[in-house]
Amino acid sequence: MTDAYTRLKASFARVATLGEAGSMLHWDASAVMPPGGGAARGDQLAVLAGLGHELMIAPAMAEDLAAARADGEWDVANLALMRHAHRRATALPVALVEATERANAACEKIWRTAKGTADFAMVRPYLAEVVALQREAAQALSDVLGLSPYDALMDCYQPGIGVADVEPVFAAYEAFLAEALPRAEAIQAARGAPLPLPGPFPVTLQQALCQAMSERMGLDYEHARLDESMHPFCGGTPTDVRLTTCYAAEDVGKALLGVLHETGHALYERGLPAAWARQPVGEAAGMATHESQSLIIEMQACRSDAFLGFLGGELRATFGGPAAPYETTNLGRLWRRVGRSFIRIDADELTYPAHVILRFRLERALIDGTLAVADLPGAWSEGFSRLLGIAPPDDGLGCLQDIHWYDGAFGYFPSYTLGAMAAAQLMKAAKAAVPGLEDAMGRGEMAPLTGWLRQNVHAQGSRLGFQDLLRHATGKPLDPADFMDHLRARYL
Amino acid sequence: MTDAYTRLKASFARVATLGEAGSMLHWDASAVMPPGGGAARGDQLAVLAGLGHELMIAPAMAEDLAAARADGEWDVANLALMRHAHRRATALPVALVEATERANAACEKIWRTAKGTADFAMVRPYLAEVVALQREAAQALSDVLGLSPYDALMDCYQPGIGVADVEPVFAAYEAFLAEALPRAEAIQAARGAPLPLPGPFPVTLQQALCQAMSERMGLDYEHARLDESMHPFCGGTPTDVRLTTCYAAEDVGKALLGVLHETGHALYERGLPAAWARQPVGEAAGMATHESQSLIIEMQACRSDAFLGFLGGELRATFGGPAAPYETTNLGRLWRRVGRSFIRIDADELTYPAHVILRFRLERALIDGTLAVADLPGAWSEGFSRLLGIAPPDDGLGCLQDIHWYDGAFGYFPSYTLGAMAAAQLMKAAKAAVPGLEDAMGRGEMAPLTGWLRQNVHAQGSRLGFQDLLRHATGKPLDPADFMDHLRARYL
Repeated sequence: MTDAYTRLKASFARVATLGEAGSMLHWDASAVMPPGGGAARGDQLAVLAGLGHELMIAPAMAEDLAAARADGEWDVANLALMRHAHRRATALPVALVEATERANAACEKIWRTAKGTADFAMVRPYLAEVVALQREAAQALSDVLGLSPYDALMDCYQPGIGVADVEPVFAAYEAFLAEALPRAEAIQAARGAPLPLPGPFPVTLQQALCQAMSERMGLDYEHARLDESMHPFCGGTPTDVRLTTCYAAEDVGKALLGVLHETGHALYERGLPAAWARQPVGEAAGMATHESQSLIIEMQACRSDAFLGFLGGELRATFGGPAAPYETTNLGRLWRRVGRSFIRIDADELTYPAHVILRFRLERALIDGTLAVADLPGAWSEGFSRLLGIAPPDDGLGCLQDIHWYDGAFGYFPSYTLGAMAAAQLMKAAKAAVPGLEDAMGRGEMAPLTGWLRQNVHAQGSRLGFQDLLRHATGKPLDPADFMDHLRARYL
Repeated sequence: MTDAYTRLKASFARVATLGEAGSMLHWDASAVMPPGGGAARGDQLAVLAGLGHELMIAPAMAEDLAAARADGEWDVANLALMRHAHRRATALPVALVEATERANAACEKIWRTAKGTADFAMVRPYLAEVVALQREAAQALSDVLGLSPYDALMDCYQPGIGVADVEPVFAAYEAFLAEALPRAEAIQAARGAPLPLPGPFPVTLQQALCQAMSERMGLDYEHARLDESMHPFCGGTPTDVRLTTCYAAEDVGKALLGVLHETGHALYERGLPAAWARQPVGEAAGMATHESQSLIIEMQACRSDAFLGFLGGELRATFGGPAAPYETTNLGRLWRRVGRSFIRIDADELTYPAHVILRFRLERALIDGTLAVADLPGAWSEGFSRLLGIAPPDDGLGCLQDIHWYDGAFGYFPSYTLGAMAAAQLMKAAKAAVPGLEDAMGRGEMAPLTGWLRQNVHAQGSRLGFQDLLRHATGKPLDPADFMDHLRARYL
């Protein structure tokens, strides 16, 4: 352990603390900010990002990174992650970082209106600016990291994973889906239609139920809060997690399963190693890992027969009505329904990867420059038809649906499907490791699962990369076969 | 106009934008943050304050300040304010600024519990740390500004105003009060007791009424929001003002008049010159000026017979019941009731200055070192008895009641009474300048008043100091006689 390394730990903690401030202001902008605050908020986020960047590129930091030595597995990993973060940061000039934050904030604001009116033309020039800045950043990162420009962007979200990892997995899934989807649809059609849950579902009751179920997963609301926003997300910091969702008076499943999903993210943040807080090695191990934690809660655990058996009783106690709609079989038919639909966040887990595969291909083309922003709606329709056999009637149901691109997040989408695959693999390993895990879920007891996750995933921070973390937790790197086995068992 | 000055404008805008981020996080901590977020929030605010401070003390800024020249009244004033701010900032080492933010946040958190249980001992060591750091800061500022340590702290809140301005005014008021209070009490006792308003006052109805009345004052909720916190305040930024209040189910006046008070602050922020946003000259002209704007709305306008006549109708339409309690005379007796009480924020406008005079004397002694933190509760009791003839039964009703000291705000309190006096003076001038102003208030129309305020106070930013601003708006510097005339007319 050297003085240089000690100074680096303090500097990185400062940058992380500044990042926490930005994270809170992002939450505020999405959950509570009056519309007139948007312009100033963009400036605030730009200044915070710019200052964080300046701290990273200060000459003293480069000197310390060159001189620092660390001992012990965690510190060695921490120093390596510091060096990687520094290489990324020094690749980007301050002016580009600030311009990006500003363009993202402006575009996101317009997108909120454009999405509502399905008016792509309204947001197009803003998105073009966002894409231009992303391409500039991707090129700069590419030069420094020795990755392709798009891989360099992916590396922001899931370090160490690139197109070469993703493309074969996605191609295999496309082939699997072409066969599995018609079969699953036929099986489903042969069954009776599910009974709808007897509404109404007053929002105040939904809110209370969502928070109660989130607490049942193990989330402590002394360190969290649940609010509403247009696009649900989990933000904030490890000791102050901010979850949002979006309530629909006619559909309790939408908000409830959404909150359970965000709760998986929140549990990961809460379970990160506190001793390494604000250090690179104490952070979550990338977005695919993060998504594996939301999906293991939402898709693997909460949509399982075992947990649905418990949840049905809670739902009936909250909203009342006859017993039949709340039975496990019926809830499974309602909430594990497969089908071809336009909206990613409403998609079932079988077709969801197709939504991601489309976005992966389109965003890669936008960054490579082989697709112009003006041609995005057409390319979207064409690609969607090829994958799922239907084309969206308007851009609100197409390329305007997700916040990611309009907020400058390119290279993120593959993480969703990598995470879904990892979630299946982790659940298989957890069940093998913890006797009675499934029975406990049937009683609404999640501690056997979440305890295993905390120990084997959350508490590991970023000590291990995505593949090594899976090796550590499950004995093998990512193996999409576990996901396909899960889908076959559930739908075929 | 020089390049140096242009660079300074950009630098000060950056510091101000960082301050906006801090302001939002302060609001968040008070209005929505889960309790477990407190520790990290303290760190976040400390880092933001530290970075803002570093930007201020950067060598390039000192060079630019030495070289800069500005033309035109506003730019000349702006440059002078920059130099003053720089002198203040360079007086304080970064470590002291960060330690202060951290100690304030820790103390404020404990205070929230200590106040609830009236347990001064619980918060005493935290307050001792806050006071020690304030004394250190005061001494450092004193050396640089050539003011006494306490004057140097006052200068943070109301530049250019010190003990020499305040002490004679407060002594005169103490003498006035000794005679006026018993007379006002006797007059009040001779009248019938007011009828209580017929409750209940459901919080959701109160919320809607509070916002509607706030909008009626001219506040645009596209740029504002209204939430709840333990201690009402107005925070945020000029384009995103955050008001808070505290609802009591049994008393609609508490929240309503509180919101009208904070609305006065909010209108000031909204009316600041947008062309000078994030520049020192575009900021509010000190806390006494700010308080004059809240009090001219709450005390001068909204508690006037004219406006109460309008408000009674609105209240009855909201909460129902017989007409008599809502009549102007009765509302006046309810909401202009004088009396000796323990809580400053509940005090009437006649006794309120006594609460301030006590705090002024005690905080001055804490900073001068002639009063130890451990002796504060005793000194409070003694001082309160001398001023108002009663002593608080516990510290919750005494020295624990206000957030200010526990958040490190020493030198702030005098602003409340300077503001009350300025409000009376401004109202007298506005009535003289705008024909029909009072009749308009009787119809609930506030534009004649707020238009005059916007032009003569808000839009002036910090171009003029407190006394010169009053000269500009009313033709004379602060003249407490207008306030005493107002009190005589209303209570004697």
